[in-house]
Amino acid sequence: MTTIIDGKATSAAIKAEIAEKVAEMTAAGMRAPHLAAILVGHDGGSETYVANKIKACAECGFKSSLIRLESTPEAPLAQETLLEEVRKLNNDPEVDGFIVQLPLPRHIDEQAVIEAIDPEKDVDGFHPVNVGKQSVGLPCFHSATPAGIVELLSRYGISPAGKKVVIVGRSNIVGKPLAAMLMQKGTKGDATVTVCHSATPDLASITRSADILVAALGRPGFITEDMVAPGAVVIDVGTTRVPDATRKSGFRLSGDVDYENVAPKCSAITPVPGGVGPMTIVSLMLNTLEAARRKS
Amino acid sequence: MTTIIDGKATSAAIKAEIAEKVAEMTAAGMRAPHLAAILVGHDGGSETYVANKIKACAECGFKSSLIRLESTPEAPLAQETLLEEVRKLNNDPEVDGFIVQLPLPRHIDEQAVIEAIDPEKDVDGFHPVNVGKQSVGLPCFHSATPAGIVELLSRYGISPAGKKVVIVGRSNIVGKPLAAMLMQKGTKGDATVTVCHSATPDLASITRSADILVAALGRPGFITEDMVAPGAVVIDVGTTRVPDATRKSGFRLSGDVDYENVAPKCSAITPVPGGVGPMTIVSLMLNTLEAARRKS
Repeated sequence: MTTIIDGKATSAAIKAEIAEKVAEMTAAGMRAPHLAAILVGHDGGSETYVANKIKACAECGFKSSLIRLESTPEAPLAQETLLEEVRKLNNDPEVDGFIVQLPLPRHIDEQAVIEAIDPEKDVDGFHPVNVGKQSVGLPCFHSATPAGIVELLSRYGISPAGKKVVIVGRSNIVGKPLAAMLMQKGTKGDATVTVCHSATPDLASITRSADILVAALGRPGFITEDMVAPGAVVIDVGTTRVPDATRKSGFRLSGDVDYENVAPKCSAITPVPGGVGPMTIVSLMLNTLEAARRKS
Repeated sequence: MTTIIDGKATSAAIKAEIAEKVAEMTAAGMRAPHLAAILVGHDGGSETYVANKIKACAECGFKSSLIRLESTPEAPLAQETLLEEVRKLNNDPEVDGFIVQLPLPRHIDEQAVIEAIDPEKDVDGFHPVNVGKQSVGLPCFHSATPAGIVELLSRYGISPAGKKVVIVGRSNIVGKPLAAMLMQKGTKGDATVTVCHSATPDLASITRSADILVAALGRPGFITEDMVAPGAVVIDVGTTRVPDATRKSGFRLSGDVDYENVAPKCSAITPVPGGVGPMTIVSLMLNTLEAARRKS
């Protein structure tokens, strides 16, 4: 029997735990944690992500603020205007943490914006200081998706310690930070981690050696049955929008794993949607809670 | 025929190249790059390392300064005194880069000292900002030993691209940053990297799969013949002092590889001493040159 790792239910449970802690905080006279988000333009995916984050704030009892900045080809947002908003949030004592929803329009230097965020409020964990501390194993705001995966494994009693973990994809927001977390000393780490990518020859022979296989490359259905060892745990980070005329939205989310054929072979697998996705937002909530606590 | 990768000759060649660039700089009216080092106490290993760094500065045409701070069990150095020295160097416009020689006495919070260093002068590449930028693939001061290994491979025409690299050891100064560098996109990276450590079961089966095997765990002779694939490239980062009554110093340096038995099996191997060690210092020189150029 394959265990379907239910990220939706797990994230709901964690959000309820957070809400309880927030209730304790406010009962003790503290204000609720406050997450702010800057959204530039009207990208469909970004609108959805930000809306989900604000909804999660409400579920956790957090205060949330949305700062919308317009940017069109005719009237592109000036980078300095965006940086000014970042500085305002850095200096606002009522804001515990904030995010700038990515991707940003191409004319804006994304890295400059990330580095302008006060690392103490960088609840996305993208600032180099947080990336570096995560690598070294120091307390920091962990990158949301990797932290969500680590938490999901933990809640399902799947220890990575002593296991072979193969990560397919070397992105800065999933592959690399997840590798750093899983190779750290400790019960939530101690894995032997291999990172594969587009320059890896004979990929299938490596993925087949994995006790835990993480697909994070953004190519729908890329991981097929022959690439997975019987009994492996498969974590699917892919969330590509695939056109689908039968849906009202006109698309469906597709993971990087050929779920139908791979699932029967696994000991456990995350579905898409409802697997890793909801956990990413929960990590953001946990980071914001932590930011609020640090200040108190 | 096994190629003996000569780190000593390579480092000498690079130092000569640096000296040429420095001569150009000073001919153009600029001052020579200036590296400062803070040395606490009189640890034998640390004394040697710092002396070698200062010697390398002279070879490269750099100015160097050594700041000695005493610390004894009876009169331990106050952390604040050390931090004050760090701040002085941060603010000294005549110093391009500096290092605090590690390890520090146990009563001092090493991480607090590292984080007090201005990242723009952190030529050891230990500040979280530099660690994070290295992980993301941004320009930064690279960690010295990993950068030395990457350069050594490059000078010997051994491309890691598309190769399986296995690193044994997950330290913050070698294993982790080397993994980050070798998995980056580009001709000096693009490797499929696996990091092994004390919690890795059946280590030999993994090391035998390596095209390039890096031993960085600090256990003399740990990597034996049966753990290495025929034709592999072996990089030995170990430099443990082993008591040796036949030497004037009373010790010899021992690598992590059973060199005598492993070398005949390899396509290329670094000896200890004379392999990775000299390259580490050269990386520090390259970082200092870069720091001086950034300021000009």
